Amino acid sequence: MPENSTDAQTLPGGMSRRTVLTGTLAGLMVPAAAFSLGADTAAAVAPGAVRPLATTRHITIYAEPLPGGQFGYGLAPGKATIPGPLLEMWEGDTLQIELVNNTTKRLSIHPHGVDYKTDSDGSPFNDSFNEPGETRTYTWSSHKQTQLDDGHWRPGTAGYWHYHDHSMDGEHGTVGLRKGLYGGLIVRRLGDVLPDRTYTVAFNDMSINNKVAPDTPMFEANLGEKVEFLAIGHGDQFHTFHLHAHRWADNRTGYLTGPDDPSRAIDTRDLNPGDSFGFQVKAGEKVGAGAWMYHCHVQLHSDTGMAGIFLVRNADGTMPAGAQEAIDRFHEHDHAAVSTGETEAADHTGH
Amino acid sequence: MPENSTDAQTLPGGMSRRTVLTGTLAGLMVPAAAFSLGADTAAAVAPGAVRPLATTRHITIYAEPLPGGQFGYGLAPGKATIPGPLLEMWEGDTLQIELVNNTTKRLSIHPHGVDYKTDSDGSPFNDSFNEPGETRTYTWSSHKQTQLDDGHWRPGTAGYWHYHDHSMDGEHGTVGLRKGLYGGLIVRRLGDVLPDRTYTVAFNDMSINNKVAPDTPMFEANLGEKVEFLAIGHGDQFHTFHLHAHRWADNRTGYLTGPDDPSRAIDTRDLNPGDSFGFQVKAGEKVGAGAWMYHCHVQLHSDTGMAGIFLVRNADGTMPAGAQEAIDRFHEHDHAAVSTGETEAADHTGH
Amino acid sequence: MPENSTDAQTLPGGMSRRTVLTGTLAGLMVPAAAFSLGADTAAAVAPGAVRPLATTRHITIYAEPLPGGQFGYGLAPGKATIPGPLLEMWEGDTLQIELVNNTTKRLSIHPHGVDYKTDSDGSPFNDSFNEPGETRTYTWSSHKQTQLDDGHWRPGTAGYWHYHDHSMDGEHGTVGLRKGLYGGLIVRRLGDVLPDRTYTVAFNDMSINNKVAPDTPMFEANLGEKVEFLAIGHGDQFHTFHLHAHRWADNRTGYLTGPDDPSRAIDTRDLNPGDSFGFQVKAGEKVGAGAWMYHCHVQLHSDTGMAGIFLVRNADGTMPAGAQEAIDRFHEHDHAAVSTGETEAADHTGH
Repeated sequence: MPENSTDAQTLPGGMSRRTVLTGTLAGLMVPAAAFSLGADTAAAVAPGAVRPLATTRHITIYAEPLPGGQFGYGLAPGKATIPGPLLEMWEGDTLQIELVNNTTKRLSIHPHGVDYKTDSDGSPFNDSFNEPGETRTYTWSSHKQTQLDDGHWRPGTAGYWHYHDHSMDGEHGTVGLRKGLYGGLIVRRLGDVLPDRTYTVAFNDMSINNKVAPDTPMFEANLGEKVEFLAIGHGDQFHTFHLHAHRWADNRTGYLTGPDDPSRAIDTRDLNPGDSFGFQVKAGEKVGAGAWMYHCHVQLHSDTGMAGIFLVRNADGTMPAGAQEAIDRFHEHDHAAVSTGETEAADHTGH
Repeated sequence: MPENSTDAQTLPGGMSRRTVLTGTLAGLMVPAAAFSLGADTAAAVAPGAVRPLATTRHITIYAEPLPGGQFGYGLAPGKATIPGPLLEMWEGDTLQIELVNNTTKRLSIHPHGVDYKTDSDGSPFNDSFNEPGETRTYTWSSHKQTQLDDGHWRPGTAGYWHYHDHSMDGEHGTVGLRKGLYGGLIVRRLGDVLPDRTYTVAFNDMSINNKVAPDTPMFEANLGEKVEFLAIGHGDQFHTFHLHAHRWADNRTGYLTGPDDPSRAIDTRDLNPGDSFGFQVKAGEKVGAGAWMYHCHVQLHSDTGMAGIFLVRNADGTMPAGAQEAIDRFHEHDHAAVSTGETEAADHTGH
Repeated sequence: MPENSTDAQTLPGGMSRRTVLTGTLAGLMVPAAAFSLGADTAAAVAPGAVRPLATTRHITIYAEPLPGGQFGYGLAPGKATIPGPLLEMWEGDTLQIELVNNTTKRLSIHPHGVDYKTDSDGSPFNDSFNEPGETRTYTWSSHKQTQLDDGHWRPGTAGYWHYHDHSMDGEHGTVGLRKGLYGGLIVRRLGDVLPDRTYTVAFNDMSINNKVAPDTPMFEANLGEKVEFLAIGHGDQFHTFHLHAHRWADNRTGYLTGPDDPSRAIDTRDLNPGDSFGFQVKAGEKVGAGAWMYHCHVQLHSDTGMAGIFLVRNADGTMPAGAQEAIDRFHEHDHAAVSTGETEAADHTGH
C-alpha cells in the first residue's frame, strides 16, 4: 500500500470512489499525491507538498463477484465497486498492479493510454490474464511529451484514460466489462490543475455506472469547487454525454491553454465504446448552486434511464432552494419511468 | 422588440430564417448586430457600427402548433418555423426570452452553452416550463474567457450552440423536440468573422430540419460569400454531416487561429443527438459555382432522404451552368426515393 | 504513369498497397515523392531529393469486378484491391485521374477534402460518372492554408482523406462503396514527417477492409519505424477504432505542434461513415516489439470479427518472443468466432 494514504473529504450522499495517485515523497514543488480509500474524491491535496520524479508504485487490486451476477475491482477484499477505483498517475510514473482474482472466471486488467508490454496487455490474444484464483502483476508506465530530433513532438501519456477486463468469457473478453469490470485512470502532467473532487461516469450500454435512473449516481459538490468528470463509454450503443449549465474546453484538460487556444467550448460530447474524456468545471460557475441534470442526449436513452443529478450545494454545504424538490421529482418521475427504463436497459445490455 | 431591426438581404429561394443578434448601440468598434425577421441570413451587418458592452436584450418567442402535429418557435404569432429562429449573442451579453406558449401542451426552452439559473433550465426536473397558454421568461447570459489566479484559462461562452424544448410530454421532454421545437444559437466573440449568411441544418432522427429529400432545404449563396452553417443533432440516430467540395477547420470557428493551429481540415463530422458545431466556408472557394450536395454520410440515411443542396450561384447571382439540371435531377430521383425515404423516416422517428 | 516510380520495400506478409505521391522533380529541399505498385508502404523516400511546386500529375485507375460480387480500384488492369490504391499529394498539387470503368455498372470516383469542380464530383446529381466501359478524367487539386485580408486563416487541404464511388446502383451511389470501391487519400504539407510505411484501415459496416477476423489485415513494421495509419469509416454502423499500446495526438498529423498543443493523446477514436483520420506511431514506442491488437471497441463488433493484428517485429526484422503464438491464437480462436462473425457481418452489410 502506498505510504501516503489519506481519506479524502466526503460530502453527504457522495459516491463511493477510491483513488490512487502515485508519487509522493520528494521532487518538484507541486502538491503531493493522495491515496484514498472509500472516498468520493480524486485527491486530497496537501498544499506545499513535493512531487517525486518517475516514481514506481505498487498497488493490489481485487477482482470480485458482486450481487446480481456483476463483478467489480476494489482496493481491498470485499470492497469491489462499479466503476472500480479511480487510479491516478503523474506523467513519468510507473504503476505495478498486483491483480488478485477472487472469482471463478478468467479475467484481467487492460489499460488505455499508458505504456505496457505484451505480458501486461490483459488479453487472451497475448496470453495475459489471471486464471480463477490466480494473482498476476501488470505493469503500466507513462512518459512525458518529447521533442524528436527532427523538431516534431511526440505526445506524452497525460490524459483521461480508463481500464477494463479484456479476458472474461469469449475470446475478446467483452463480458466482464459489461458486468462491471472497468474503472477510470487519470495521468496528470506537472502543472495541471488538481481538482477538489473527481467523479467517474461510465455510459455502459443503456446504463450509467451499471445503474438506471433513479438509481444513477448523484454527483455532489459545493459552489465554486473544482469538480472533475472522467467520462467513459462501453458496450454496444453510441451515446452523447450532456451536463446542464456547465461547459468546458474540448481538449486535453477542459481548461484553455491560453486566450488563443482554438478548442471549442462544449457541454455535450460523443461518448462511444472504448472512448473516454475528462474535464473540470467550477461547480455552479456563472449559474449558481442547484440540482443540475447530466444525461445521455440520445432521446431514447435519457427517456429510459440514462440520466442523473449533479448537485451543486451552496458554498457552505447547505442545500440551495429548490434542489431537494428537484431531487424528489427525479426520484418520483423516474420511479415511474424506470419500469420502462430497466426493461429497455435489460434488452440492450442483454446481448 | 429590439430597436435595431432590419430585414437582411435575401436570395431567391432562400430558407426562412430569423435572427437575433443582441447588442447594438455603443461600445467597441465592431459591426453592429442585426435583428432580422423572415430573412434567411444571419446578420445584416452595418459596417463601421459600434459594439456595446454586456448588453441585455429582451425578445419574445411564440411556441405554436404547426400542421401535421408538429410545433415550432417563432418571433411573432403565426410565424413559427422548424427550425425556430436563429438566435445570436455577443459573448458577455444577456438575452431575456419571454416565451409565449400558444399550444395546449406543457413546453419550455432549454439552451446549450450559455449560462442560466435553475429557474431558466427549461426542465420539469427544475420545475421550469410553461403550462399551456402560460408566458414565462427565461434568462440566458454569457461570459468571456477568463484567466484564473493560477494562470489557467476558463473557456468563454462563444460557440455554435442550440436550444430546444425540454418539457413536452414525458418526464424528459423529448417529444416536442422531435416535433420541431428546436433552433440554433450562436454566441460570437469580438473579432470573429461575421458571415454573409447563416443556415441552420438539424439532423433530427432521419430528417433534415424535419424534412426528407427532395423537400430538404436548399441553402443558397453567391460565389465568394461567407456562408455559415450551424449543424445540430437530435433524435435517436447517429449521423455524419458531409458537405461536398468545401472544407473547414475542426475548431471553434472553422477558421484557423494561425498557421500553427493544429486543427484538422474536415468536410465530414459526426453530428449526434445534442451535439452542435458551426463553421464558415467561402462559397465555391477553389471549386467554383455549382450545385453541391450536403448529406448524412451514413449510407442508409442518405439513401432514404437525408440529403439536400447547397447552391452556389455565380458572383452576380445568376445560375451556373448545369446547376438547374442538377436540381431537377435531385427532385426527380428523390421523388422516387422519397416514398421509401419517408417510410423509413417515419419508422425511425416513430418510437 | 509518373516518371519516378519505385517499388517500396515490403515486409513478409505485408498488405497489398499501392501509392501515388504527386510531385517529384524540382523545387524545395524535401524528400521526393514515391510511387509504388504492389507495395505495402506509403512512400519510398529518396533522401535529399527535391520537392516540386504545384505539380500536376496524371494517373490511370481501373475499376474492376472482383470475386464474390465485390469491386475494386487498381493502378493497372487486373490489379484492383480493397481498399484501392493509396493516393498521395503534396498540398498545392493537382491530380488528374483517368478512371477506366472495366465493369458493367455505372460508377465514379468521389474524393473527400480536395478541390474539384462539379464535373469531377463523381455523383449522379452532377451527371459526373462513368457509364459501363467508359473512361473519364476527374481532376482533384489542393491548396495551402492562406491568410485573409482580415487576418484570419483559411485551412489548407493537407489531411487524411479518402475517395470512393458515388454512382453505382441507386441514386446516391452507396452500393459500390459497400462492395469495395474506396481507398485512402493523403495530402501532405511541406515539413510533415514522412512515414516508413502507411496502412489504410477501413471500418466498412461490420468488416475491416471488407474482411472479418481472422482474415482481417495484419499490419507489420519493425521496432522504431514510423508507421502511418489512415482510418476510414463507411457503411451504416458507428465504430470506434482502438490500437493497443500506441497513442497519438488527436489533431491533423498525430504529432504535437509543440509543447503547448492542447490536443488530447488518444488510443481510441470514433470512426463513423464518411469520416477519416490518420496519425503516425513509432512502432513499439515505449512498449517494445510484439503482436498488438487493433479492433473496433464496440463490443459486439469486436466479438464478431472487427479485429486484427499490428505486428511489431524486432528492429532487425525477426519475430519477437510470443508473437507467433499470439498470431496462431488469433487464427484459432477467431476461426471459431468467425462462423458467428461472418453471419453477423452479412446481416449488417446486407441491408
